[in-house]
Amino acid sequence: MKAAIVGVTGYSGLELIRLLNQHSQIEVAEIYATKEIGRKISDLYPHLKGICDLEIQEFKAMNIIQNTDLVFLATPSGVAKEVSKIFVAHDFPTVDLSGDHRLSASSYQKWYGKGAADSEVLDKFTYSLAEFTSDQGKFISNPGCYATATELALIPLLTSQKIDLDTIIVDAKSGLTGAGKKLAESSHFVNVHDNYMTYKLNQHQHIPEIVQELQQFNSDLEHIQFSTSLLPINRGIMATVYVKVTDDVTDEEILELYQEAYADKFFVRIQNGLPDLHDVLGSNFTDIGFAYNPVTKVLTVVSVIDNLVKGAAGQAIQNVNLAWGFEETNGLLAGPSYL
Amino acid sequence: MKAAIVGVTGYSGLELIRLLNQHSQIEVAEIYATKEIGRKISDLYPHLKGICDLEIQEFKAMNIIQNTDLVFLATPSGVAKEVSKIFVAHDFPTVDLSGDHRLSASSYQKWYGKGAADSEVLDKFTYSLAEFTSDQGKFISNPGCYATATELALIPLLTSQKIDLDTIIVDAKSGLTGAGKKLAESSHFVNVHDNYMTYKLNQHQHIPEIVQELQQFNSDLEHIQFSTSLLPINRGIMATVYVKVTDDVTDEEILELYQEAYADKFFVRIQNGLPDLHDVLGSNFTDIGFAYNPVTKVLTVVSVIDNLVKGAAGQAIQNVNLAWGFEETNGLLAGPSYL
Amino acid sequence: MKAAIVGVTGYSGLELIRLLNQHSQIEVAEIYATKEIGRKISDLYPHLKGICDLEIQEFKAMNIIQNTDLVFLATPSGVAKEVSKIFVAHDFPTVDLSGDHRLSASSYQKWYGKGAADSEVLDKFTYSLAEFTSDQGKFISNPGCYATATELALIPLLTSQKIDLDTIIVDAKSGLTGAGKKLAESSHFVNVHDNYMTYKLNQHQHIPEIVQELQQFNSDLEHIQFSTSLLPINRGIMATVYVKVTDDVTDEEILELYQEAYADKFFVRIQNGLPDLHDVLGSNFTDIGFAYNPVTKVLTVVSVIDNLVKGAAGQAIQNVNLAWGFEETNGLLAGPSYL
Amino acid sequence: MKAAIVGVTGYSGLELIRLLNQHSQIEVAEIYATKEIGRKISDLYPHLKGICDLEIQEFKAMNIIQNTDLVFLATPSGVAKEVSKIFVAHDFPTVDLSGDHRLSASSYQKWYGKGAADSEVLDKFTYSLAEFTSDQGKFISNPGCYATATELALIPLLTSQKIDLDTIIVDAKSGLTGAGKKLAESSHFVNVHDNYMTYKLNQHQHIPEIVQELQQFNSDLEHIQFSTSLLPINRGIMATVYVKVTDDVTDEEILELYQEAYADKFFVRIQNGLPDLHDVLGSNFTDIGFAYNPVTKVLTVVSVIDNLVKGAAGQAIQNVNLAWGFEETNGLLAGPSYL
Repeated sequence: MKAAIVGVTGYSGLELIRLLNQHSQIEVAEIYATKEIGRKISDLYPHLKGICDLEIQEFKAMNIIQNTDLVFLATPSGVAKEVSKIFVAHDFPTVDLSGDHRLSASSYQKWYGKGAADSEVLDKFTYSLAEFTSDQGKFISNPGCYATATELALIPLLTSQKIDLDTIIVDAKSGLTGAGKKLAESSHFVNVHDNYMTYKLNQHQHIPEIVQELQQFNSDLEHIQFSTSLLPINRGIMATVYVKVTDDVTDEEILELYQEAYADKFFVRIQNGLPDLHDVLGSNFTDIGFAYNPVTKVLTVVSVIDNLVKGAAGQAIQNVNLAWGFEETNGLLAGPSYL
Repeated sequence: MKAAIVGVTGYSGLELIRLLNQHSQIEVAEIYATKEIGRKISDLYPHLKGICDLEIQEFKAMNIIQNTDLVFLATPSGVAKEVSKIFVAHDFPTVDLSGDHRLSASSYQKWYGKGAADSEVLDKFTYSLAEFTSDQGKFISNPGCYATATELALIPLLTSQKIDLDTIIVDAKSGLTGAGKKLAESSHFVNVHDNYMTYKLNQHQHIPEIVQELQQFNSDLEHIQFSTSLLPINRGIMATVYVKVTDDVTDEEILELYQEAYADKFFVRIQNGLPDLHDVLGSNFTDIGFAYNPVTKVLTVVSVIDNLVKGAAGQAIQNVNLAWGFEETNGLLAGPSYL
Repeated sequence: MKAAIVGVTGYSGLELIRLLNQHSQIEVAEIYATKEIGRKISDLYPHLKGICDLEIQEFKAMNIIQNTDLVFLATPSGVAKEVSKIFVAHDFPTVDLSGDHRLSASSYQKWYGKGAADSEVLDKFTYSLAEFTSDQGKFISNPGCYATATELALIPLLTSQKIDLDTIIVDAKSGLTGAGKKLAESSHFVNVHDNYMTYKLNQHQHIPEIVQELQQFNSDLEHIQFSTSLLPINRGIMATVYVKVTDDVTDEEILELYQEAYADKFFVRIQNGLPDLHDVLGSNFTDIGFAYNPVTKVLTVVSVIDNLVKGAAGQAIQNVNLAWGFEETNGLLAGPSYL
Repeated sequence: MKAAIVGVTGYSGLELIRLLNQHSQIEVAEIYATKEIGRKISDLYPHLKGICDLEIQEFKAMNIIQNTDLVFLATPSGVAKEVSKIFVAHDFPTVDLSGDHRLSASSYQKWYGKGAADSEVLDKFTYSLAEFTSDQGKFISNPGCYATATELALIPLLTSQKIDLDTIIVDAKSGLTGAGKKLAESSHFVNVHDNYMTYKLNQHQHIPEIVQELQQFNSDLEHIQFSTSLLPINRGIMATVYVKVTDDVTDEEILELYQEAYADKFFVRIQNGLPDLHDVLGSNFTDIGFAYNPVTKVLTVVSVIDNLVKGAAGQAIQNVNLAWGFEETNGLLAGPSYL
């Protein structure tokens, strides 16, 4: 099966190359970007020499449709919604890693500050949190990185009637790859190193995505308090969730709740104690742990992922595996590098 | 004025040397440790060559009492409470940077897991959060690092009647110097670098210290939810405080509240927007910022300090300056290094 | 084919698990360590949950000989030379990742400061720099990390008659995993972070290993100047080689020299310009680049590897692949993570 | 004494503010930049709140000449040479931290790739390596960061007749602040973190500066081999110097050589063993250590500085102190932060 990647020089695009190189059924056949057309990707990114030496092509949707079986859109938000039109028109399998097909049109307009995808296009896409989507369909909207970590941490609680829905607070932290390749003061090495900064407080575009998805599991949920900060590292997200329980709970009850929810989900691991980033870096795992405080009646749930794997390229491949009937783990078996 | 430092080779002891070198009234005259007796501190720590070339002495309280005017205890918890006895007996000015004289005896026993200081010794010490202590006295118990950042963030709110006391959640993060010099798996470079880990959740010994101090400002407070994590950096603490307000507030009201509370406090700065660690590293400042979310009625307050300065040696010197009537900023004017 | 790993909890042991998990012909069947006997490795290292849940066993050579086909010794130097005796006695395939079977007995005694392996054991082992060893044999002595990077950088030059052998200077730098898991002041996070320190200057035990191996390619070589420093990162080695050329050379001549030397070597890539660590991290590649300075007649050659992969576990697997006739890249195709 | 800073928002400009805040004789009275005119520097850089709240002014040389006593040029190379004209014309004391007045006109043209300062301006400036300049004069050209570390390491050897001048190799490494604030791929956090990269090999503009200065001490010197690499940290330079000795030397001889050369120089410390970056960070010290290898006849000398202090703003202030007859250490007594 041949795949094209559009927006290959972004972090998600490069990660797709890295992971698909290990996939037994999918081959990266064509790569597209807006710059450096005609150059070998391995000349620009020497780490790819001998791994992927394809030439970067100028985007032509029809080439993709004629030559490949599937397209990954690893473009920035705002671009994917334009690019996807023609693929939808030709009923051509598309996986969008951007935020363009995740939200309702009005919500997208509000949080992304630009016009949403056309409704006939938007309606084709299925938001596919891999562990909770039974039918990915032909048009997959891959979840955001913060959203993935947060949703997987909260879904078992939302269906449990054990928590006060009005008290959910998420303190999420991400490595710098989550902020993309753009050159900015906030991504200059000197400003990030030895620092920790909170940004987009109450304004992050993953907030409506999380609420919208969680409402599928409990329609009484109205909002969450959500903060995002930058860790001085490259990869990794930790979502720390605080929530008041309605009645006292025991650690055993909570453990059972999570173990049941993820009993047959290979890529979600319930850990003893709280997981740290090293447990998942480089892999497609989501590790979850928790601790209950009977004094404050606050349950703390910690969820960690690699933002470029489970939070982007890895989950996209997992979704394709599920949609096409491949082994769920195909291309995704590389364990965490740990260090 | 001559000072002795006991436990000079710990991070707080070394930081006292660095800062007192800039003090116009206090000279480090004697230094004590349990190892390397008789060696020059600058042979062990070559960065001190030409700055402090004193020999390390074996602890003898009477030497300190006879030769100096003031002693800083930069020893681990459990040691200071033994060492302080003789200084109290001789009414000799003592500043304890450890946790040994902060808590009530029963609380210390519970959270530190060992017997507390004798009550006649304990009673002599004043817990001195510098901005809120009017009379430090002769025996100063210097606050903990997490406690300092958290208390300064919360005190203005506690006296305001604006918040729901039952909803306080503090997500605090610290660089590795906060964990001390002990060799442990959790301080090995490889395990910390590129990682972020939460530890001592609901069990950190600064929890009772914070609650005890905050109750001075609002006796209705019963508890706080408090988590501590390790950032892969050397210095710096950020305390992120989440709290529900009882009625809607405006950013202006909150700003006014904080500006009034810290109007004449040089070392607390209310910043526009949320401060980050770079704003204070190397300095004695506490920077505070906040943002209110009308959707969730959650107020987020962010407070940052350098854990070795305002969180340890710097505040200790500030307390001495206040107690002895020196300029509050003496020895503490070095600005943040920023980068 | 079943493999046992002795010393599984060291960095090389853990990396063997990570890489062999991707190998189609070799399965990790038994794991051994000196501590935590009877516990699941994934309880101690939660990142392995679902990937390797074997129990740690107490070392019993006969178990390994009876139950498996091959043993990897990932033990510290000084241990492997004892452990290997019985495997040699039973003619059981052994790969030693330590330094115990690399040097002549007298050289080992001098540089490691302890007695060497018995000569009948030592003689069985073949030092196997994978790219230059045609017959690995049954007993493989896997090269050191610094040695691998340095030897691959220098071998083409040594056979060329283009350089002054008396002028070779190697300035090598490594991430902290190269220093092992031992708790020490020099591996404490606070001492390493934001630092760069040179250690074991003129005394590193890889010096005789490098000289011994290089002399196979040019017996006139007498010594090299070699320095080692610690980078504040986890993985990666860069060996920067400076050498005077005897006659002026052109960049084209040097390029041709290296391209010929590594024409059919998948895991050595000659890059345009100087490679950096990101080009190889996580992979088994050695990337080499160079630049000639006609003013000083100094040729600079830069060679980078991941010290845990090509510098340890990866090359060990590569050697086994070559020895057993598997595809050379089996288990080793994961590309550099790049970031 | 009042000082103006031109180019205040660069790293050197900000560091001048930090250090001059501690100076008893010099006050920062005016600050200039090309952007954000009219805004308070502490609004742009909140870490300066309460330390320096001056407004940024648009550059007008006559204002500076009328209102202040001294100007620091912390502008990029290419700007200072234009700006300095009017100050020279008015015989107004000027310290240039850029490279514009360090080289001969022809050398500047060759290495900086642009036209040099006018010769009547250039002739007025004195290149002032503080430890070796007896008369700074009114127009001070402050040395480069790599140049400072390298020159102080080599000068004692150059006058000693002990080394082969044709064999000097310098492997220098710097933190990212050395590369300036410009946004570039090479300063993006993700590309620098966990990486180590060599750049401008044989092409760094400090090469002619070093050679020109060293030739003052030994006119037989023709060239040096010099490489520069980026460490994934913010501050600090290590220059590792390798050189062949002509006859065998002892460590004692070398020690004596260095101790004599720097006997009365407060800011140069000869350390036992090799210094590391932590020994000097935040301070104006240059620490030097060495080790001789009788096998290869190579002497290794390691020199470390903080690139923003001794390598820029600190040495500039030291030069002013010397020129104006202030205490040499005024404003520069802050010890290394060590961690």
